[in-house]
Amino acid sequence: MKLYYTPRSCSLASHIALETVLETCGTQYEIQRVDFTKQEQRSGEYLRINAKGRVPALITDRGILTETPAILAFIAHSFPNARLAPLDDPFAFARVQSFNSYLCSTVHVAHAHRVRGYRWADDAAAIEAMKQKVPQSVGDCFELIERELLQGPWVMGADYGICDMYLFTLAQWLELDGVDTSKLPRVLDHRRRMAASPVVARTIAAELAS
Amino acid sequence: MKLYYTPRSCSLASHIALETVLETCGTQYEIQRVDFTKQEQRSGEYLRINAKGRVPALITDRGILTETPAILAFIAHSFPNARLAPLDDPFAFARVQSFNSYLCSTVHVAHAHRVRGYRWADDAAAIEAMKQKVPQSVGDCFELIERELLQGPWVMGADYGICDMYLFTLAQWLELDGVDTSKLPRVLDHRRRMAASPVVARTIAAELAS
Repeated sequence: MKLYYTPRSCSLASHIALETVLETCGTQYEIQRVDFTKQEQRSGEYLRINAKGRVPALITDRGILTETPAILAFIAHSFPNARLAPLDDPFAFARVQSFNSYLCSTVHVAHAHRVRGYRWADDAAAIEAMKQKVPQSVGDCFELIERELLQGPWVMGADYGICDMYLFTLAQWLELDGVDTSKLPRVLDHRRRMAASPVVARTIAAELAS
Repeated sequence: MKLYYTPRSCSLASHIALETVLETCGTQYEIQRVDFTKQEQRSGEYLRINAKGRVPALITDRGILTETPAILAFIAHSFPNARLAPLDDPFAFARVQSFNSYLCSTVHVAHAHRVRGYRWADDAAAIEAMKQKVPQSVGDCFELIERELLQGPWVMGADYGICDMYLFTLAQWLELDGVDTSKLPRVLDHRRRMAASPVVARTIAAELAS
């Protein structure tokens, strides 16, 4: 497998999942950086891999996968020994998908209004107005996670898995988004525990070194 | 099971899945309308069901599920005889999840900027500027679906399933979003074939009658 990624983007979640599978199952993978500063995500070469012009994209021997919740679920299903999701329980698995779906469709989207407002308006003042609301809109999402969704110690309770990798990834952006993190002690504690994991530390180091 | 829904909203996809399961497996379900004109989605009673204040929410005997991709996957997993998704093939299932994830995180989000811009800006002019871009941003999404994602005859090729229910649901909004549908012959053909299904027609009729 080969993961197309960009440092500090949501592709980190899929990268942590792959590094976890390397650790637990010995399955090798490659990574390929997509340099957003050079607009490589809009190059013809990359658009043939992912027509959406975004990361992550995962090359597998069956074809290409995009969208973080799908890639995470695929890795969990493909390597059951890594125990990354409750594969044999449709309700518990749906809870995992529900959490990850909320992250991609609401939390990540709220964040994206800080730096990618051009997706939803052409007017410079409107794009600036979107930026202004990000501390509140992202903050509201994380307060819901803090209060309702993060069961503890891991997102889904006792079992660590793909939700933790994805939450940790989006929680990287809290300070840049201007969120008041004093209201998020449980989210910050989760982030600290994730950052202390050797697998996570190795994944981040590999992204920054490449 | 009991589905909380609102007519003409994304909850239609989950409703079609439930009606399909009733048709194929005989499994009964209830529906409960959430009246957005009365702001029922923000009532204390509903917020105890779904703290996000949105539809859909599915009550199951194991607990409550939210987020369309998760609900659809849960229904598919719970009723394998209905054959709503490729449950035994991790890659094919991930492709289903990828498509549905794109619909929730990008297509539905682009659409939401027409009527729910207040989520991402407080300024009236900015909210108006967001509305202006919807025909283009939603149109771009559907052109990608037309060109790359809709395999035909169904979204995932030969097999009808949960992606079709979700695509049909979001395709209801094309004209209201001001999208130039002349560029979307395959999407429109898919929508026509879906609308002609007795299960789909019955589902829509039930929503409008309630």
